[in-house]
Amino acid sequence: MELLKSTIEGIKPLNMEVVEKAKKHIDNLTKPIGSLGTLEEIGARMAGITGKIHNKINKKNIVIMAADNGVVDEGVSCAPKFITKVVTENFTRGITGVCVLARQAGAELTIVDIGVDADFDHPLIINKKIAYGTKNIAKEAAMSYEDAVKAIEIGIEVVDNLVKGGVDLLGTGEMGIGNTTTSAAVLSALSGLSPDVVVGKGAGLTDEQHQNKKNVVKRALEINKPNPNDPIDVIAKVGGFDIAGLCGCFLAAAKNRVPIVIDGFISSAAALCAVRLNPLVKDYIFPSHLSAEPGAVYMMNEIGIEPMLNLKMRLGEGSGCPLAFMIIESALAIVNEMGSFEEANIVNDFLVDIREEK
Amino acid sequence: MELLKSTIEGIKPLNMEVVEKAKKHIDNLTKPIGSLGTLEEIGARMAGITGKIHNKINKKNIVIMAADNGVVDEGVSCAPKFITKVVTENFTRGITGVCVLARQAGAELTIVDIGVDADFDHPLIINKKIAYGTKNIAKEAAMSYEDAVKAIEIGIEVVDNLVKGGVDLLGTGEMGIGNTTTSAAVLSALSGLSPDVVVGKGAGLTDEQHQNKKNVVKRALEINKPNPNDPIDVIAKVGGFDIAGLCGCFLAAAKNRVPIVIDGFISSAAALCAVRLNPLVKDYIFPSHLSAEPGAVYMMNEIGIEPMLNLKMRLGEGSGCPLAFMIIESALAIVNEMGSFEEANIVNDFLVDIREEK
Repeated sequence: MELLKSTIEGIKPLNMEVVEKAKKHIDNLTKPIGSLGTLEEIGARMAGITGKIHNKINKKNIVIMAADNGVVDEGVSCAPKFITKVVTENFTRGITGVCVLARQAGAELTIVDIGVDADFDHPLIINKKIAYGTKNIAKEAAMSYEDAVKAIEIGIEVVDNLVKGGVDLLGTGEMGIGNTTTSAAVLSALSGLSPDVVVGKGAGLTDEQHQNKKNVVKRALEINKPNPNDPIDVIAKVGGFDIAGLCGCFLAAAKNRVPIVIDGFISSAAALCAVRLNPLVKDYIFPSHLSAEPGAVYMMNEIGIEPMLNLKMRLGEGSGCPLAFMIIESALAIVNEMGSFEEANIVNDFLVDIREEK
Repeated sequence: MELLKSTIEGIKPLNMEVVEKAKKHIDNLTKPIGSLGTLEEIGARMAGITGKIHNKINKKNIVIMAADNGVVDEGVSCAPKFITKVVTENFTRGITGVCVLARQAGAELTIVDIGVDADFDHPLIINKKIAYGTKNIAKEAAMSYEDAVKAIEIGIEVVDNLVKGGVDLLGTGEMGIGNTTTSAAVLSALSGLSPDVVVGKGAGLTDEQHQNKKNVVKRALEINKPNPNDPIDVIAKVGGFDIAGLCGCFLAAAKNRVPIVIDGFISSAAALCAVRLNPLVKDYIFPSHLSAEPGAVYMMNEIGIEPMLNLKMRLGEGSGCPLAFMIIESALAIVNEMGSFEEANIVNDFLVDIREEK
C-alpha cells in the first residue's frame, strides 16, 4: 500500500510553462495555426510531460499483463480459458498481432504473468503471479482488496523498472479470456452506466449468450456492490489482475512523467481506474484507436479523451499502441524539424493572415 | 486525350481470386476473425491490387501538385496568392509539414508546378506549368476543357514515371491558395449538395467572409453550369490545375495497379473526379485522415470511404499520407509476419471457437 500511496501522491501536473512555450514554438512553424490538429496538441502536451519543448523517443515498450478470470465459468466467452496461456507463450515467439506491430514501430514488449491459470518457464515472461486466475465475479469478489493493491503495485514496479532502463514511451496491453466482461463491469461500476449499454456482443456471441453476459455483469454488481468512489474496491470486486496491473502502469507512468498509450477496451478500463485514483494521470495518457467493442466509446467519454485511430480493431494485446507510437513520434518530428515562418521566407506583413487560413 | 482515354480504359478490377486467398490466409492468423479490422481489409485489398498475398512496400512517394487559383480575387482566402509560390519552394527545403512527416515515414516527394503564378528555377520542382494560375471561376471557366485534359494527363505521366522508377505506394498532396473554394465547388457540382453545406468557414474567415465564400461558389456554379455527369467539365469550369493533376494521379495509380492515398479535402475532390471517370479507381484508393474542413465528411461519403485517422488536420500538402503509409505498412506486416493457428499451437478442436471471440 505504501508504494501505491507514494505513487499516487507523487503525480504532479504538467509543466504548463513549458506547454505554453511549446505552443508558441508550434504556432510559429510555417503552417496556419492549429492546422496540424492533434499532432500539435501531442507536441505541446509532451513538452509539459518532459519539461522540454523538443523531445525524441529513445525506447518504446508495451507492457502486457496476462491473467485469467474466474468469470469464464459463466460462459461469457466462446474461447476456452487455456487460450490465455497459449497466447501469452506466443508473445515470446514474436508471432501474435502485437508482436508484429510492435516490431514495425520499433517497440519492445514486457510480458507479465500477473495471474494466468498455468505455469510458465520462459525468460521473457516475468513471473508476478498473484493467483491462478481470479474468482468468479458472478458469485464473489474477484480478489481481496489487498490483492488488488498488490496487483496495482506490480504494475507500478514494472513501469518504474522500465523507466529506469530508459523507456520513454509506454504502451499497455493484456491477455486474458473473459476480460471484456470484467472491463464492462468496471466501467459500469465507475460510471453508473447500465450493463445493458456497456456489455458488448463480442464477435461470436449469440443474442442469448449476449443476454447472459449482461446478466452476469448485473449479477456481479449486485452481489459484490463495488464502491464507485473507490476504484480499488471496484477492481477487487469485479475487475481482474490484468486491469489492476495496468492501472498501476498508468499511475507509475504519470509519476515518472513518461507518456503512456491506451490500447483497447481493457486497457482503457485500467486507465479509467487510474484517472479516478488521481485525475492528473489523464495528462500523461494518450489514446490510440477506438476499439470495436461497443462499450469503448463510453469508456473514452468517461475518461474524456478522443481516439486518434479508427480501425475497427478489437484484438487487444496492446495492438493499437504501436500505431499510436508512430503518430506520437511524427508529432515530435513536427515540433523538432518544421521551419519557422521566418525560415520559410514568409514576411511579417502577412504573418497574421496566413496563420489564420491557407 | 489519347493518354487519358487509354488510362481510363486500362483500369481493371481487383484480382478477386487473390483477395479471397488473402482473406483465407488472414483468417487463419492467430487472432479472432476480423479482430484487426481495417488492417485486415487493407491486407486483403493490397493482395487484390498487386495479385500477391504477401506484399512489401519498397518505395513511397507523395505527388504534390502546386497551382494558383484565379478565384482568390474574390477574397475567399485570408492568405495572399504569393504564398503558393513560397510554400512550393519550401517543399524543396524540407521544412514544411509534409516534408517532415514524409521523412518520418521514409517517403519521398515529387513537386510539380502545374500552374503556379510564378517561375521556379529548382531541380526538385518539375515544370509542367499550363498557365500562371486559373481564371476566376466566379466570372468564367477556370480553364478550357482541353487544358483540363492536359492537366489530368500531366498527373498520369508523373505517376507513370514514378511507377517505372519503382514507386509502389503513392500519396497525393497539393499547394494552392484558394483551393478549398474550388474543391467545394467541384464537390457541390458532382454531388448536388448545396454550397451552404460543403463550403467551410476555414480557420480565419469571419461569418461575413464565409457567406462571401459560399456566394462565390454559388455564382461559379450558376455562371459556368458544369455538367455533373462529366467530371472533366466540372474540373475545367470550377476546379483547378492541382485538382486536375491529382485526378490524373489517381487514374494512373489504378491503371498501374499501385495503391494511392488521399490526403485532405482537395486531394479527395480529385479522387472523387477520378472515381466518377471510372468507378474501379475506388479499389486502388486508401483514405488517410478526416480533414477538419467541414466539407470533408461529405466528400468521404460521396466517394464511399471511411478515414483511418482522426487528427483534426487541415494543412493539406499531402501531410496525411505519410501517417496512412505507416498504417498500410503495418497491415502488410500483419499479413506477412503473424503466425497461423497451427504455428500458434492452438489445437483444431477450439479453432472455430477462438476465431469467433477472444
